Amino acid sequence: MDMRSFRETAEGYSVIFLDAYGVLKSASGLIDGALEAVTSMIADGKEVFVVTNDSSRSPEAMAERYAEQAGGELLPPERYISSGLLAAQYIEHQIPYGKVAYLGKPESAHYIEIAGKIPVPIADCDGTDNLVAIVLLDDEGFDWFKDVNATLNLIRHVNVPVIVANADITYPMHGNEIAIAVGSLGTLLSDITEKTFVRFGKPDSMMFAYALARARERIPDITKRDVLFVGDTLRTDIIGANTYGFDTVLVLSGNTLPEQADLMIRSSGIIPTYICDSITT
Amino acid sequence: MDMRSFRETAEGYSVIFLDAYGVLKSASGLIDGALEAVTSMIADGKEVFVVTNDSSRSPEAMAERYAEQAGGELLPPERYISSGLLAAQYIEHQIPYGKVAYLGKPESAHYIEIAGKIPVPIADCDGTDNLVAIVLLDDEGFDWFKDVNATLNLIRHVNVPVIVANADITYPMHGNEIAIAVGSLGTLLSDITEKTFVRFGKPDSMMFAYALARARERIPDITKRDVLFVGDTLRTDIIGANTYGFDTVLVLSGNTLPEQADLMIRSSGIIPTYICDSITT
Amino acid sequence: MDMRSFRETAEGYSVIFLDAYGVLKSASGLIDGALEAVTSMIADGKEVFVVTNDSSRSPEAMAERYAEQAGGELLPPERYISSGLLAAQYIEHQIPYGKVAYLGKPESAHYIEIAGKIPVPIADCDGTDNLVAIVLLDDEGFDWFKDVNATLNLIRHVNVPVIVANADITYPMHGNEIAIAVGSLGTLLSDITEKTFVRFGKPDSMMFAYALARARERIPDITKRDVLFVGDTLRTDIIGANTYGFDTVLVLSGNTLPEQADLMIRSSGIIPTYICDSITT
Amino acid sequence: MDMRSFRETAEGYSVIFLDAYGVLKSASGLIDGALEAVTSMIADGKEVFVVTNDSSRSPEAMAERYAEQAGGELLPPERYISSGLLAAQYIEHQIPYGKVAYLGKPESAHYIEIAGKIPVPIADCDGTDNLVAIVLLDDEGFDWFKDVNATLNLIRHVNVPVIVANADITYPMHGNEIAIAVGSLGTLLSDITEKTFVRFGKPDSMMFAYALARARERIPDITKRDVLFVGDTLRTDIIGANTYGFDTVLVLSGNTLPEQADLMIRSSGIIPTYICDSITT
Repeated sequence: MDMRSFRETAEGYSVIFLDAYGVLKSASGLIDGALEAVTSMIADGKEVFVVTNDSSRSPEAMAERYAEQAGGELLPPERYISSGLLAAQYIEHQIPYGKVAYLGKPESAHYIEIAGKIPVPIADCDGTDNLVAIVLLDDEGFDWFKDVNATLNLIRHVNVPVIVANADITYPMHGNEIAIAVGSLGTLLSDITEKTFVRFGKPDSMMFAYALARARERIPDITKRDVLFVGDTLRTDIIGANTYGFDTVLVLSGNTLPEQADLMIRSSGIIPTYICDSITT
Repeated sequence: MDMRSFRETAEGYSVIFLDAYGVLKSASGLIDGALEAVTSMIADGKEVFVVTNDSSRSPEAMAERYAEQAGGELLPPERYISSGLLAAQYIEHQIPYGKVAYLGKPESAHYIEIAGKIPVPIADCDGTDNLVAIVLLDDEGFDWFKDVNATLNLIRHVNVPVIVANADITYPMHGNEIAIAVGSLGTLLSDITEKTFVRFGKPDSMMFAYALARARERIPDITKRDVLFVGDTLRTDIIGANTYGFDTVLVLSGNTLPEQADLMIRSSGIIPTYICDSITT
Repeated sequence: MDMRSFRETAEGYSVIFLDAYGVLKSASGLIDGALEAVTSMIADGKEVFVVTNDSSRSPEAMAERYAEQAGGELLPPERYISSGLLAAQYIEHQIPYGKVAYLGKPESAHYIEIAGKIPVPIADCDGTDNLVAIVLLDDEGFDWFKDVNATLNLIRHVNVPVIVANADITYPMHGNEIAIAVGSLGTLLSDITEKTFVRFGKPDSMMFAYALARARERIPDITKRDVLFVGDTLRTDIIGANTYGFDTVLVLSGNTLPEQADLMIRSSGIIPTYICDSITT
Repeated sequence: MDMRSFRETAEGYSVIFLDAYGVLKSASGLIDGALEAVTSMIADGKEVFVVTNDSSRSPEAMAERYAEQAGGELLPPERYISSGLLAAQYIEHQIPYGKVAYLGKPESAHYIEIAGKIPVPIADCDGTDNLVAIVLLDDEGFDWFKDVNATLNLIRHVNVPVIVANADITYPMHGNEIAIAVGSLGTLLSDITEKTFVRFGKPDSMMFAYALARARERIPDITKRDVLFVGDTLRTDIIGANTYGFDTVLVLSGNTLPEQADLMIRSSGIIPTYICDSITT
């Protein structure tokens, strides 16, 4: 497949959805030139959103973090669409008022608070009175041994929905290291209990439908055909966005290395519309 | 969980989505009283749609078949929303012009024709020239031994998207028999080739988003909160509709037997909003 | 299926293999009457062995622990056959001399020491020099968050065999609680890395072959037909022993509750030769 | 990893186990030089056995077929160890007298006959009277659509053991084509019914234990250390034989192509003791 300039590729689209890790940033911070690339897309009149599997912090905290790294605002908070927001919407509408036990850092509880429910860390969850749901938000902020085992037994003993607010398996760390994401803890617990959990995040199409609905609030008459989705991972970003009906760019600045791209496309059968080195080309 | 009258349950909703098998019909035909139940919902001003994992025939053919069984129109063709329509939309917009090899009866090729592409049964697919996609539409209409093996080798040798237009594993037959659905053939082929296929159908949320969009063409200002989804299967209908944000009714006229309902809800962790004997109560 | 007296059932067999958890002991100690039952089998001239998925302690430590709980020796150390012994045999013969990184308590390193290799806890494993294998021995004795993530990255960066010395998914704790076993951590890591690990423990037949070979050291001419395997879990003990060619007793003193036994046999398709309440009947 | 001469590699071993497909033969017949290689090993005093996942024909029929292709006896029938023999042993000892329904060609029923039970093709299986087991023997000899569906319903309605006599997923055909093996049909049916089947064949260790026992009938005092296992597939031959405790040779004359060997070893984590081009080197 031919490599193209991202700038020229994006010309035909009025809405650009960007994955975060591997597209905008790496474990060591913002990708060189990412700020300029985003600024130039906005200057060209495009609607730009970040669409990310993340439920560890609020969109406000995301925007702030990028601003620190970029030395100035990259995008305002309402431009960050996270899987946590889908989980929050679910908790707001599908779960009655009560306590929601969660795995994650205190700031991840944001998604329970905006849903109007009472967040309780798994470690503080003594008893199941008034417990209305269990949510897996982040892989940090708790004692894995004690709290993953406690979550397992809680799931076995109360019949409330279990929500995985980020479907990712791993995330990148410094220097070619990766870390186990909360989605993998969800799979571990779901396999053991043989229960079906409510999962949010790419590649499920709900994430893309939600992002499109948000873009329509700004340009009401856009269709799927106006959207370009940019991601670095075939098995989440590209297959999900393609199935939903978006054109896709696979960038080689993250998970998919330039020398592996062709082989990975052939062996997975997942075919992006375009391939670009990065959004800075 | 308490059993409720379906009629009273439906009162609070303006849009009713009905699964087909196990809700409206069984292997031996329309469920007794289904026609009256649907007629009465329509008379009450509700928007009623059938939302079904099926790509074996067109909505027109579905409507005709129900009409024969009911002795009069149950619902007009545009009220049947099938996973085949999602596949057709995908083939129309995401696949270039060319030949689409398919598994299924000739009438299932309807979904390739409305997408403006050229349907070719797998058995007639000599060579890969101009082949743009492979679609699994139906479990009948071909020689399983020859054609499933031919599909396997086609998938291995050409790198085009493979589309499974109905995610179902089995479907009911007469007298407590079941049959292997095309979704299972998709899983068999995907496991062997280790490729990711494009799959359409419940429980994926795209089916529910599509149905809601269709309902909005009639009542533009409805939200997810106005919709009641009625299904007989926890692992497709109920978990999918619930995750998408619809209230759900589990009916006990199909896959989920009355004596098993409580155990299956507890062991699966999938909790419907309501349980009713059938839509005729 | 009819319930039988264990004593009468065992009459026709000269070798008795007993699973540990759920057969001999529960989380709160030795099952009432287990000491007497074992003593009486030995008095009847039977060869009795414990065959257990366990790599957290040596056979000597197992024997000691049972002796404490029973107030006297239940069985001597050489009568305890653990999955750890299979792993040790593998590490002895299939792995060259060098460092073996492990997850587990210090006493689990016994199985690396008897194999003549150098055990190094994952947490102390700085660098990959002279690293010859990675072994998962026990779910305790390390920091899950830090050390499971460290193991993940070690597996990704060095190409040495990864050995799971106990295939179990969970194990019982006090009062209807369970804990995640090291086998589940193995599945988590194997799924993420897409690598094949070397796994030891029931239901794999190697465990049964090893136990039979040990029994033959005492009675050289016995065959599979002389062995009765007693277990509480259909999906490990019963299917494994049955496939290997042993007659099996499912006891209802552990994982399989009396009121569920029939349903579980029917739904799993795993059929024990006999069912007994416990080994004390 | 360094490539070695097979002849020199084999020098240190007194027992040689050879996989069939990819080691001795390809879809187009015996590999060039295979007869000479086997003859020379025998002349060197080695015990040579073929160890193959196959239940489609008897060892006698296998020997005959090789003799035809080689223009003279390659090995006598008792040197062919098939997964079908393990299944036959199971059916003989673990299944009571009665009818065994099977999928496969008439000659595959050999394995039911030598077990002393009555073979009945699935297509002729009217009723479940006196049915004692269901066996999947071969992917040919029946109507896939009708008979796989019939097997599915039989499994659902009678609670007898289901035996998969060959665990393979696919097998090679002429000209880079492959065919779906009966092991894949087993997985399809087991996934749908959620039942556990009794499976025979590599990589399960039972196959290796059985082969070793057969070699010991000839040289009673050999141990695992005297055996060299030769296979072309990492995920069945190499991981299975290595776990059981045999040294292994990966040959590049079959499933694993020379240019992929290094990558496949690294990505799978399955490490053979040696790599050779073929047994003829």
